[in-house]
Amino acid sequence: MTPSVDLGLLDPATGSAAAAISDHAYAAAMVDVELALVRALVAVDAAPERDEGWATDAVDADALAVGARASGNPVIPLLAQLRRAAPPEVAEVLHLGATSQDVLDSATMLVAARTRQRIDAALTPVLAGLAALADRHRATPAVGRTLGQQAAPTVFGLRIAVLLDGVRRAAQHLDALELPAQLGGSVGTLAVLSDLLGVQRADQVRRRFAEELGLAFRPTVWHVERGPVAELGAALAVLIGALGRLGLEVAQGTRAELGELELRLGADEGGSSAMPQKHNPVPAILLVAAARRAPGLAATLLGAQLALDDRPPGEWHAEWQPLRELLRLALESAVLAAEVVAALEADPGRLTGHLDDGHGAVHAERAQWALVPHLGRARAQELVRAALGARDFVPALLASLADQPEAADRVRAVTDPRTPVGLAGPMIDAAVGSAR
Amino acid sequence: MTPSVDLGLLDPATGSAAAAISDHAYAAAMVDVELALVRALVAVDAAPERDEGWATDAVDADALAVGARASGNPVIPLLAQLRRAAPPEVAEVLHLGATSQDVLDSATMLVAARTRQRIDAALTPVLAGLAALADRHRATPAVGRTLGQQAAPTVFGLRIAVLLDGVRRAAQHLDALELPAQLGGSVGTLAVLSDLLGVQRADQVRRRFAEELGLAFRPTVWHVERGPVAELGAALAVLIGALGRLGLEVAQGTRAELGELELRLGADEGGSSAMPQKHNPVPAILLVAAARRAPGLAATLLGAQLALDDRPPGEWHAEWQPLRELLRLALESAVLAAEVVAALEADPGRLTGHLDDGHGAVHAERAQWALVPHLGRARAQELVRAALGARDFVPALLASLADQPEAADRVRAVTDPRTPVGLAGPMIDAAVGSAR
Amino acid sequence: MTPSVDLGLLDPATGSAAAAISDHAYAAAMVDVELALVRALVAVDAAPERDEGWATDAVDADALAVGARASGNPVIPLLAQLRRAAPPEVAEVLHLGATSQDVLDSATMLVAARTRQRIDAALTPVLAGLAALADRHRATPAVGRTLGQQAAPTVFGLRIAVLLDGVRRAAQHLDALELPAQLGGSVGTLAVLSDLLGVQRADQVRRRFAEELGLAFRPTVWHVERGPVAELGAALAVLIGALGRLGLEVAQGTRAELGELELRLGADEGGSSAMPQKHNPVPAILLVAAARRAPGLAATLLGAQLALDDRPPGEWHAEWQPLRELLRLALESAVLAAEVVAALEADPGRLTGHLDDGHGAVHAERAQWALVPHLGRARAQELVRAALGARDFVPALLASLADQPEAADRVRAVTDPRTPVGLAGPMIDAAVGSAR
Amino acid sequence: MTPSVDLGLLDPATGSAAAAISDHAYAAAMVDVELALVRALVAVDAAPERDEGWATDAVDADALAVGARASGNPVIPLLAQLRRAAPPEVAEVLHLGATSQDVLDSATMLVAARTRQRIDAALTPVLAGLAALADRHRATPAVGRTLGQQAAPTVFGLRIAVLLDGVRRAAQHLDALELPAQLGGSVGTLAVLSDLLGVQRADQVRRRFAEELGLAFRPTVWHVERGPVAELGAALAVLIGALGRLGLEVAQGTRAELGELELRLGADEGGSSAMPQKHNPVPAILLVAAARRAPGLAATLLGAQLALDDRPPGEWHAEWQPLRELLRLALESAVLAAEVVAALEADPGRLTGHLDDGHGAVHAERAQWALVPHLGRARAQELVRAALGARDFVPALLASLADQPEAADRVRAVTDPRTPVGLAGPMIDAAVGSAR
Repeated sequence: MTPSVDLGLLDPATGSAAAAISDHAYAAAMVDVELALVRALVAVDAAPERDEGWATDAVDADALAVGARASGNPVIPLLAQLRRAAPPEVAEVLHLGATSQDVLDSATMLVAARTRQRIDAALTPVLAGLAALADRHRATPAVGRTLGQQAAPTVFGLRIAVLLDGVRRAAQHLDALELPAQLGGSVGTLAVLSDLLGVQRADQVRRRFAEELGLAFRPTVWHVERGPVAELGAALAVLIGALGRLGLEVAQGTRAELGELELRLGADEGGSSAMPQKHNPVPAILLVAAARRAPGLAATLLGAQLALDDRPPGEWHAEWQPLRELLRLALESAVLAAEVVAALEADPGRLTGHLDDGHGAVHAERAQWALVPHLGRARAQELVRAALGARDFVPALLASLADQPEAADRVRAVTDPRTPVGLAGPMIDAAVGSAR
Repeated sequence: MTPSVDLGLLDPATGSAAAAISDHAYAAAMVDVELALVRALVAVDAAPERDEGWATDAVDADALAVGARASGNPVIPLLAQLRRAAPPEVAEVLHLGATSQDVLDSATMLVAARTRQRIDAALTPVLAGLAALADRHRATPAVGRTLGQQAAPTVFGLRIAVLLDGVRRAAQHLDALELPAQLGGSVGTLAVLSDLLGVQRADQVRRRFAEELGLAFRPTVWHVERGPVAELGAALAVLIGALGRLGLEVAQGTRAELGELELRLGADEGGSSAMPQKHNPVPAILLVAAARRAPGLAATLLGAQLALDDRPPGEWHAEWQPLRELLRLALESAVLAAEVVAALEADPGRLTGHLDDGHGAVHAERAQWALVPHLGRARAQELVRAALGARDFVPALLASLADQPEAADRVRAVTDPRTPVGLAGPMIDAAVGSAR
Repeated sequence: MTPSVDLGLLDPATGSAAAAISDHAYAAAMVDVELALVRALVAVDAAPERDEGWATDAVDADALAVGARASGNPVIPLLAQLRRAAPPEVAEVLHLGATSQDVLDSATMLVAARTRQRIDAALTPVLAGLAALADRHRATPAVGRTLGQQAAPTVFGLRIAVLLDGVRRAAQHLDALELPAQLGGSVGTLAVLSDLLGVQRADQVRRRFAEELGLAFRPTVWHVERGPVAELGAALAVLIGALGRLGLEVAQGTRAELGELELRLGADEGGSSAMPQKHNPVPAILLVAAARRAPGLAATLLGAQLALDDRPPGEWHAEWQPLRELLRLALESAVLAAEVVAALEADPGRLTGHLDDGHGAVHAERAQWALVPHLGRARAQELVRAALGARDFVPALLASLADQPEAADRVRAVTDPRTPVGLAGPMIDAAVGSAR
Repeated sequence: MTPSVDLGLLDPATGSAAAAISDHAYAAAMVDVELALVRALVAVDAAPERDEGWATDAVDADALAVGARASGNPVIPLLAQLRRAAPPEVAEVLHLGATSQDVLDSATMLVAARTRQRIDAALTPVLAGLAALADRHRATPAVGRTLGQQAAPTVFGLRIAVLLDGVRRAAQHLDALELPAQLGGSVGTLAVLSDLLGVQRADQVRRRFAEELGLAFRPTVWHVERGPVAELGAALAVLIGALGRLGLEVAQGTRAELGELELRLGADEGGSSAMPQKHNPVPAILLVAAARRAPGLAATLLGAQLALDDRPPGEWHAEWQPLRELLRLALESAVLAAEVVAALEADPGRLTGHLDDGHGAVHAERAQWALVPHLGRARAQELVRAALGARDFVPALLASLADQPEAADRVRAVTDPRTPVGLAGPMIDAAVGSAR
């Protein structure tokens, strides 16, 4: 009987990709960590060099999960399994000088590093797709909305450029984080290793260990200094949030009443158990759901910094599952975003058409400022206020400018949707350029 | 290949008990919900009565997890599986009038109700054990500590009584929560069911449906009004916190420097991967870890209330996993607490001995107030302050009272650890009495 | 120079009402608590009865704030101020047997009780207004939306009834919470009071103390058992969330593209610093903002349960500001909701008009089920699917039913917006009835 | 009557320093932002150069707070006040092209930049003090503790070095964050400014604006892309957490039962309202309290990323107060940490003495590994296990090694507290070196 508790039933934001952050992936990373330590010992002649074939299939993840309960962590049962499987001379040096936390912390960072690579790969088409979309709609007039209300004209490409910029910066921020290896031994001093090999060789071992794992080397142990975990959690939450905003915009834009966006999903996606006509923007919805969950998980990691002693009495254990969830949600969000971007179409007709919803009132700000140089601020405000009271704003305003042909021309210009909108162009260029 | 992502490796607070909140348990509850609806239809003669044997093993939870990704929830693939397995005349009426959310919400409440029963069962020995411990130590003198510092004498039984009271009240609060069934159909109106059966029979169906499930009946649909979930999450977090405090106290009290508590665990529990002498108070540590995780999860549920429309666009999906985690952590915390209470021993010698750590300074408050009726406030403060400067507080204070035999007697009384400590007795009685 | 840090500039959800939860209100409540203790002592003849006029203006809240920094809490400087102002024979017994935490905990619960009364008062017109709105629109056809998409017909009154039900239940839940007084002395034993007055009179004092404050009496001290605070925080967050949903619905419904709702605010509300035509639904926006802040604050309170010893080393201090913020946000949300409800108008034309946005596809579910008894499930699905491919769903479906007049009649009935929608009526009655 | 709601009574972590983040500081920063925009306009000849003296005292922060309620933000009433105070030709161009959010976002970043400088200044003695302490105790033997239990010998200097490293890295991370200016106009396009001045000069204005404020320039508007705020919030929370750990360690180490640390506070600090002998480690406690509050606040900021449209409908408003609180808590934590470090003394006698609490069992791991080369793993484990059963571990182990003089020598060496402990030295050097 499997102790399996979670198949992903309630976490449909999981998908095949997130097998990358399954318990099997963690178990494999823990084995990699133990092997890296052996290799680092080999490098200083403290262990014999042996083929590592024995380690394949040495681990039974189900049994680990059961054993983790009594020991308080999965490394203790893992070691028992590995020692049984390893050649005696390797078993002898396995885990030498290390403590459980060294193995689980390093394995976690290894899983994080591998997941980060997958995230970056999944984001490549997202960034490219958003860049292309921003570029394509650099001159598609749209209604800018603030506090939920129609506010002033913009171009659809700018809205996408802003989204793009957020995702790109969040990914860059995540990529810039240092993911360190951990090797400190029982209380962080590496005393046993130093006793056995001398201080210098022990130091070489910890450096080589990090190198073998492709993780950063930290000269000071971080068993109880959880900045790396807290910062990683926060960076993942920021990225999940940036991608969640894509989901939110798409879920809103595909509403029938707006109709600015369409999500062309496969026939088997987005159906309803009740309504035959429904095409639910499922990946957009799941992006939002992921982003609603991330802050609480990140908060747990930020709070887990507050730990006593030389290794934490419980706060470390509290990190494991939330960090894993954040890694999973970040990778799955990247995958979902790629699906969304691939399926996303904007409807220029609906985008531009909404400019007329308010009978031209959306042009009031630019029209008013266009009048200021001609009429002064007070008179401009007065005419605009009067025209806002009429049925159609622009014609009414123009009518009141019958004796001001220059001012009327200026109003005509700034209320024409074809007129370029401020710095939208350069902003789009900047966002698109940086994403390449 | 199984899509399983979580065996409990990183959630050692899972254990066998929490299979109760596994994906298999959710899948089974969803089947129970669909069957309850059929039974409710049978009751109004809208479906034929059939043996329900077909439903056993009708569901493949692994496949559900895969299918949930495309549809956005596990009910859609579940229905497909059930319809294949059911007799045609049952397949015809399966899910009649319901929407996915009806099934998942009701199944979630069913899992919650079942888990609550298990929590209550697991807490029975916890409450009894704490009550016995409080009672046993109703006169065991101990140092009361505030802001981390030794403050004034107390009895150990009161500390336990306070813990007990917290756990009991949190459990009671959880038990008092209404766990409602959900049945509203696609947009909450039960229109289809009413169209087919008439309003009155449709109303009977939803009442009978709740009855069949043993859940509360709510006359108004709560698809988008998530009070039941938010309140459940908060109540679980309060209970997890109350139990976490037990873990925190035990982890602190078993520190060698305090040595007030001992946790007599099995030989295979609490070992270290590095240190042969270690006996880690693993269940106490895991209680703390659970309590550090609960607030972030509860916050997600509180935030998920903020949803638009007639069913939520993402916030509902964001609830599933955090609520499940809270149920799992609450049940496991109850189980861990039972282990802790069963293994817990208090050391009266160490408890009382710490009264002397500060050379009697811990008696200063009571001694000072004992003097006030005899000497007035100012003089009492003066003598106490002077005695606090001496090596041993009580002898120094008594020495300064050479000519005040009554006052000295009073000081002797209130600084004698055998003197009853205030209302500790009645407080312990109250807490112990309520827990029975 | 005032040490004032917060005038409400960044918390515009504050308003005049929330002076109720200002530092002055807390200072006043602390004075009330110290006076209640004196009165309780008078009741057992342990203090002389005196006029309490001396306490008016005895406290300088600014100075308290400065003093709170060095002492770690505001009660220590408060006591110094009160002792200076009181008649000597009252000064003598002020705070007798109490500790700072007794005073601040009781004052906090007093502020909470007073705020809860104000919340209830502010909610009275909210519940009445929503009930009237639900009732008025019990037959106003509207589009039900799920996952952001148009789903099936509903009535607007049901949407409001669901909102109403959520607010009512959240308020009821808050009202049901026990707000206890705290009186335990330095380590919770009431030892000093018992030493001075005997156990029985000390017990009378703590009961009378709670009575004087109009707070609940708890037989066991709760210095370190923070259920009352955690549960209060969660109940406030649930209420803020329920009210936030009103804001969210209004902010969405007043979007020009939906146009289902209108918020008729005063001329000076909702203007923009840039756009002359803007009428921002400011109170709705502020309701949403409050609801976005509440979960993080509640999480802090839930986490603060996890405290050591007989009084908490830091976690208690961490509660003060978040609980105050939640009280403030809850009261202000109630006030904002009253403004929203007073200004809210629904536009039946726009509400019903949106049923046509999808050319009748919104009727597909009910139409399909109307056909099932006549044509069987498979044939019904087939015809509906075909009609969904046509330009206009209902006419196309009816055309395909040329030879099935009864089925066609049934389709006509269930797609007529004037046909009652399922159990919407009884649900509205239930919600409206409970709110009265 | 002042609308002041918060004097700092419940936020004693406020103190004089945090006036830096008061509403007055925000109001001043908003004025600086409006002036920077005028100066940027002057630079492109779009406004006349004028003395800025008029702006001093132009703003009444109390009135702003009242006005902010109706408008939904404080910029609208601010502008009215400034326009009344400014010379007419300046009033004419004030706020030109900007929107409220430009001003408040830029002012927030200005407050953040100023606060960051103060934090860095406050941290200088913290880093120096911790470095000196780590250095001073590089060879002070101490008990390393894991999961709350005595585990293996370490040196006290390493514990401090780890703390130091955490604070330094967190501060560095905060310093590396880009704090951008915001200038986008009503919907982020800067359309009005571009209409009036042309695209090129408008672009110059926004670059100059950022320069005038000393903030970073972002080529794309970030009205709705809240990475800068979310990342700032997270970085502040990480720093508050790293400093909170200092508080936690000091609160624990100053417990009488450990007695490893002492906090030499002023006579007026740390007293109790009840207990004459109490010296509460108030600044340590307040550090812990701050760190318990930060995660919930940061979670709100992470969640506020999820906003619709071109400017957020509520989520922006939800950011203001939590970000301000985080800035305040971070600065105050730095100030508190400086107080703690200045007052902190370690007691080498108590630190080293605890090595004997467990009768030498703390040496078991190193002793066992010292035997492995001589006796092999199995025999080493056996002897160590046997010796752990004896009263005193080291003598018992040595007795069992009577015929193994070399092994016994090795055991003597590794159990001698004067023997250097592993890589503690190099780790301390690294942490101390980096902090300089």
